[in-house]
Amino acid sequence: MVAACNTHNPQSFRPWIVDGERVGEIGPNMADLLTRSGADVFAVAPDAVTFADALAGASAEQRSAALDALLRRLREGGVIRGWREEAYPVAPQGQSWPIPEPALQMERAAAPLFGVRSYGVHMNGYVRHDDGSLSMWVARRSRTKDTYPGLLDNAVAGGQPVGLSLADHLVKECAEEANIPEHLARAAVPVGLITYRYREPRDDALEAVKPDVQFCFDLELPEGFTPENTDGEIEDFMLWPLAEVAACVRDTDRFKFKCSLVIIDFLIRHGYLTPEADPDYVRICRGLRA
Amino acid sequence: MVAACNTHNPQSFRPWIVDGERVGEIGPNMADLLTRSGADVFAVAPDAVTFADALAGASAEQRSAALDALLRRLREGGVIRGWREEAYPVAPQGQSWPIPEPALQMERAAAPLFGVRSYGVHMNGYVRHDDGSLSMWVARRSRTKDTYPGLLDNAVAGGQPVGLSLADHLVKECAEEANIPEHLARAAVPVGLITYRYREPRDDALEAVKPDVQFCFDLELPEGFTPENTDGEIEDFMLWPLAEVAACVRDTDRFKFKCSLVIIDFLIRHGYLTPEADPDYVRICRGLRA
Repeated sequence: MVAACNTHNPQSFRPWIVDGERVGEIGPNMADLLTRSGADVFAVAPDAVTFADALAGASAEQRSAALDALLRRLREGGVIRGWREEAYPVAPQGQSWPIPEPALQMERAAAPLFGVRSYGVHMNGYVRHDDGSLSMWVARRSRTKDTYPGLLDNAVAGGQPVGLSLADHLVKECAEEANIPEHLARAAVPVGLITYRYREPRDDALEAVKPDVQFCFDLELPEGFTPENTDGEIEDFMLWPLAEVAACVRDTDRFKFKCSLVIIDFLIRHGYLTPEADPDYVRICRGLRA
Repeated sequence: MVAACNTHNPQSFRPWIVDGERVGEIGPNMADLLTRSGADVFAVAPDAVTFADALAGASAEQRSAALDALLRRLREGGVIRGWREEAYPVAPQGQSWPIPEPALQMERAAAPLFGVRSYGVHMNGYVRHDDGSLSMWVARRSRTKDTYPGLLDNAVAGGQPVGLSLADHLVKECAEEANIPEHLARAAVPVGLITYRYREPRDDALEAVKPDVQFCFDLELPEGFTPENTDGEIEDFMLWPLAEVAACVRDTDRFKFKCSLVIIDFLIRHGYLTPEADPDYVRICRGLRA
């Protein structure tokens, strides 16, 4: 699962540089497309992509607007699919969260074509039984969802938009995805993050990369509480003993593979995946922050 | 603290290859020394160091013995200091733990000159109070210890020798360093690992690198229990509220800096260091598995 999330080979990609800092990376075919169709916005050189001279001194708003106009043309041309009308921050990679001053914003659905890091929140909802054993709430994604329909998922998860704190975003997703009331959701504990660099398959030759940071949260839920989906994205929730969740991640492809990394991180932190039981422990631990 | 542990720049180092697999890395001055003084054991080429032809088909025992003889000569010459008479496994880097068949073994004190990964166990001993708050047991290293005398340390820690399981080694260190009885020590939970690549300063020009993997354990101790050192390595133990431990790691150099990473990992996993309170959260999380 860790390997399946880290399929990106950066060779032949060139950095996207804004104000001297790398904010993404662009593959050769995507660079050709920008040369042909985006010369009003971008200057494409062999070693880097930068904003065109006309936008060199422009404000974040002006650059975001110029890029948005280009992206909407590319959407018309069928290049950008699954448009969400959701602003993602574009900022120097490796920069701190929350991002103090994003260099610009762009439509979320376009981010992978530009290798822009996206951030998300993932929450493991679990129950501690009287005997100390744990069960985990597993979500099944709706069969009508565009992405990964019908696959298993974390209790609550969502891409992080601009303008919301992580905690407020998590509370919102807890309400929408699982009907978890705010007083429970606010008890979610931030427990670290996972990162990966995923080369997203496309049926055209354009290169799409997701260098994601997923902030992980644990929420212990009371034994009597049952999550309920309210936005149609989740078909149902199941409470599984942790051993069953672990076996499902290890032995099957039923989990959306990125979510399985969040579960593996949980299994490690809670001592269910141990260095002496799993010969790949060192590789797995390091792979979760690839 | 994360940056202070990751001072190694691999440029100009060449890999040490055994049976086609990289087991370490060797700096230019150390390579010159091996060319001059270790030609019976090593073949030093510009792009790699390998065993000399005479040892090409030798067994792990034969290679370990030949290397040991060379290392003892280097010890005589003052190159290897702090000899411990403690065997470290030499194995392909990134390989699984426990190592099924180490390629060979070498004296622990020599490992950094060969860039050999070493493994250790570090345990955070903590107390959960009735109000839910946590305190952590902090150890002060003996002022007479060779390395980092008088600095603060994790409750229990030790370099992992060959031939002991991690759990058995932890039980042994718990007894020696903190007089923690086995029935308590066996409750320690494996919670992941940290890695770093530290360039160890030396007063000669030889390059020494520690690409370490530290397995982390959490042990919740009962409120009435007080650790006591039995082997003279620890001067005393102090139970500090977690906020005080965090402030000490953040604001001072009183902790042995590698141990501070183990504490930072604890603070993250337990939700005391949060993505919204610390602008370096992403960098810190990734830096703990560098």
